[in-house]
Amino acid sequence: MGKQNIPDVVIRRLPIYLRVLENLSEESYGNVISSFELGEKSGVTPAQVRKDLSLIGAFGKQGLGYEIATLRDELKRILNLDREIKVAIIGVGNLGHAIAKYIIQRYDNEKDYHLKLVALFDSDPRVIGELINGVPIDHIDSFQDKAPELGFRMVVIAVPAEVAQSVMDKCVMAGIEAVLNFAPVHLKAPKGIRIHNTDLSIDLMHLAYYL
Amino acid sequence: MGKQNIPDVVIRRLPIYLRVLENLSEESYGNVISSFELGEKSGVTPAQVRKDLSLIGAFGKQGLGYEIATLRDELKRILNLDREIKVAIIGVGNLGHAIAKYIIQRYDNEKDYHLKLVALFDSDPRVIGELINGVPIDHIDSFQDKAPELGFRMVVIAVPAEVAQSVMDKCVMAGIEAVLNFAPVHLKAPKGIRIHNTDLSIDLMHLAYYL
Repeated sequence: MGKQNIPDVVIRRLPIYLRVLENLSEESYGNVISSFELGEKSGVTPAQVRKDLSLIGAFGKQGLGYEIATLRDELKRILNLDREIKVAIIGVGNLGHAIAKYIIQRYDNEKDYHLKLVALFDSDPRVIGELINGVPIDHIDSFQDKAPELGFRMVVIAVPAEVAQSVMDKCVMAGIEAVLNFAPVHLKAPKGIRIHNTDLSIDLMHLAYYL
Repeated sequence: MGKQNIPDVVIRRLPIYLRVLENLSEESYGNVISSFELGEKSGVTPAQVRKDLSLIGAFGKQGLGYEIATLRDELKRILNLDREIKVAIIGVGNLGHAIAKYIIQRYDNEKDYHLKLVALFDSDPRVIGELINGVPIDHIDSFQDKAPELGFRMVVIAVPAEVAQSVMDKCVMAGIEAVLNFAPVHLKAPKGIRIHNTDLSIDLMHLAYYL
């Protein structure tokens, strides 16, 4: 099945399966994992695991399960994680700073694949030029030059709501293809640019419903 | 319709609608908003807005729309935001620290409702006793005493994956009802405890698919 035919809800679960496979210790698991085990560690039913994985052409062996190394490679390939993914962060306040540190800590020592933080941008003259693990904070005005120069197509937006759309417009102009938006506002962009929103405030208000 | 009958995907959109209503300036909008305008600012179709709001018993007037103040109050009531919600954070590393600052900045000056950060926990002796905007970082061993004492039932978990389940178990023992989990691991808890996962790493890998 071609990549374009896999529903987004399924794509969403693939990194979760990949994470489970990468956390398996070799002593406790052999080279095979059942859909039951994979599902339990992922918070998904075994039937859903089998259905999701069949969509990417991965079929377990009856009574045995999935060959771990093969499945891991296949998940990486589908998710484009078989090559380096360059990421930039726009907005280096508390949250942007924490995200930068997280990406560096999580991925810099990863041997198998990289999400590499290559650029940071802000508009506050007090932080321009500062380094976070060797990555300098550049002025947002240089964004359009830096994007092709450094070759990143994925951006994390962590700026205040009031300026988020203008930052998004800069991303569009610079040919950015994927955006993870932390600003508490709905951003507009042409079709073809993928925007995912993550919003602590919405998460907390959503949870409050269940109190 | 009773609260328990509203699907979670709808609940998820209610805080987004609420945020839009709260950001409306009074000069540019009268006291009414159409489902078209509310949908556009929320990233949702007008039909979906009308359907979602009908589930909470809010019906717009034909050709006019929704009375803004009434809808805002109704959304707050449904989301339990008509009273103060106390939140604690477990794990005050980079991420936990950024989350603490975010909650304080976002909600401390909010006049209409509060998500109030009341406690912080960590296990690192070097940070115990430190204050973040007046809230002390306590040792995780005091969690079970502090939860009833301070009266919080919602917790943000921002600890490393290896210790997240043991922290979750402490939450269960202390009667916590809602958890926002930032640790990159699937947590287990008895039914009735609501766990939402938010994972930067999964978000980034998910987005990488679209590059």
